[in-house]
Amino acid sequence: MTKVTLLAGGVGGAKMAEGFAALDDVDLTIIGNVADDEEFHGLWVSPDIDTMLYTLSGRINRAQGWGLADEGRRGLDMLTDLGADTWMFLGDRDFGLHIYRTERLRRGDRPTEITADIAKSFGITSRLILPTDDRVQTRVRTEAGWLSFQEYFVRERCAPEVLELTYEGLEDARMTAEASSALAEADLIVIAPSNPLVSIGPILGTAGLRDALKTASAPVVAVSPLIAGKVVKGPADRMLAGLGHRADAVGVAALYENLADHLLIDNSDTALAGEISAKGIAPHATDILMPDLAGRARLAGEIMSLFQELEKDCAA
Amino acid sequence: MTKVTLLAGGVGGAKMAEGFAALDDVDLTIIGNVADDEEFHGLWVSPDIDTMLYTLSGRINRAQGWGLADEGRRGLDMLTDLGADTWMFLGDRDFGLHIYRTERLRRGDRPTEITADIAKSFGITSRLILPTDDRVQTRVRTEAGWLSFQEYFVRERCAPEVLELTYEGLEDARMTAEASSALAEADLIVIAPSNPLVSIGPILGTAGLRDALKTASAPVVAVSPLIAGKVVKGPADRMLAGLGHRADAVGVAALYENLADHLLIDNSDTALAGEISAKGIAPHATDILMPDLAGRARLAGEIMSLFQELEKDCAA
Repeated sequence: MTKVTLLAGGVGGAKMAEGFAALDDVDLTIIGNVADDEEFHGLWVSPDIDTMLYTLSGRINRAQGWGLADEGRRGLDMLTDLGADTWMFLGDRDFGLHIYRTERLRRGDRPTEITADIAKSFGITSRLILPTDDRVQTRVRTEAGWLSFQEYFVRERCAPEVLELTYEGLEDARMTAEASSALAEADLIVIAPSNPLVSIGPILGTAGLRDALKTASAPVVAVSPLIAGKVVKGPADRMLAGLGHRADAVGVAALYENLADHLLIDNSDTALAGEISAKGIAPHATDILMPDLAGRARLAGEIMSLFQELEKDCAA
Repeated sequence: MTKVTLLAGGVGGAKMAEGFAALDDVDLTIIGNVADDEEFHGLWVSPDIDTMLYTLSGRINRAQGWGLADEGRRGLDMLTDLGADTWMFLGDRDFGLHIYRTERLRRGDRPTEITADIAKSFGITSRLILPTDDRVQTRVRTEAGWLSFQEYFVRERCAPEVLELTYEGLEDARMTAEASSALAEADLIVIAPSNPLVSIGPILGTAGLRDALKTASAPVVAVSPLIAGKVVKGPADRMLAGLGHRADAVGVAALYENLADHLLIDNSDTALAGEISAKGIAPHATDILMPDLAGRARLAGEIMSLFQELEKDCAA
């Protein structure tokens, strides 16, 4: 069994996780993103973590990639009737989870433990851990002022230009012992094709985590979330451009410089290979689109093949 | 317009309230019961108040007399999947209300104000106010020990014998200004056919409320919740007997002695009229069953007729 530790955000991260979870020879640990967490109606909601939980347990709404299958909106309708601001869709089953998490947080339980218990209840065999048990919240500055990430992402549908990005609480956030161990004990570390700024950024920004990743003995393989300068889902391309990064696989490589050893890019991006190599990251062109479970397992399998080649090289 | 102030508990109280609300010449204020409130999954639930809100807004599940029509159980199913103890049915729409109430309580809003806002959102024109903004919780002692009211009522389905009854927090509970005004300004005060021990008891037990009721200028008319020694719904008859009271209209009269001026009893209980009179309460036999809205309006109308006769007598 190869111990794979995956750094992952929302939908793209969950797909990559699903790919590794489908492989028999992989013992998977996921370090998820908590920086898009937000309180709604007094309940603590963790969208990226929930997308991971719903995906890995097969409860996900496959058509939309997030949220639960067979959801209802009776609870949200009631809140709307009562005058609450309900631009954030929270389904009835969702509410059950948020109620559970919030009650346990109020009791003083660690977010990482709560997540582990939910994963266990859902029958998930991979480990899903949090980079930190402290509260970190991504905020984006637009022309209309500072917004929470969900305000930007859901309420404003990513329409405003992002002028600045900050992670509230990140300076004081301590890495969990679980994340530290998952990096130290990994045979292979993978950075999922998630938004490098708002999904991977706050994970890497957790005090000590970047160093733990650098000092880990495992090779670090990242997967580009961009294909031909476009993102599969979400605002990563526009965010990168807006914040002065290159909105392509080279821009991703720049953000992972001195961290990632390898970067999987799409076959359509082979022209960028030289620039990526120049940053000290080995590019590997393949089909990085994961439209279905077979595609996810295939991509995870390719990463495992790359890992096995690296092992052979080292042994030789 | 006659100002009617109704003291009322759960299902029976809501039926009586619906009857008065159906009368054009009545300006109705209801003082509800908060002593069966309980926290579930970190949310504050007010079953009697919600039954009143759901009934008066026409949202009630008519078949069962409590809860909302078109309810779902997705949220509760999720909580069950997560290992929570879910013997208390809480529907998906219900959850929306409990989430709303709990968030406002955490913000420090007064329960009476929150209730008024919910009633307004639901389009309820009668006033629903609370006897107290403090927490009061009925607890019952059974052979298995002390239980919360909902544990006894819902989880144990009223099966255990009630050996003792207490209202936690009642000693320190202060009457709301709204309840005080509603009693002082009433033309008529009505005690609904609710459980005199667990619905009306904690209302009357709120410091100052019993005196406010005694000193109010309005006549006090109570309606017996028992017909031929049996309750229409709930455990009132067994509770009365178990706690050493008479489980009939005379037992009810004894509990309202020096408080109620009149007691409506069922036609089948006319034999008890003498004993009720002996307690200084005028008995009035009629059909006190309220199987439907017409029956509720009829009984409320009969109470209004009684009130108008009293007014005439006084004027004469």
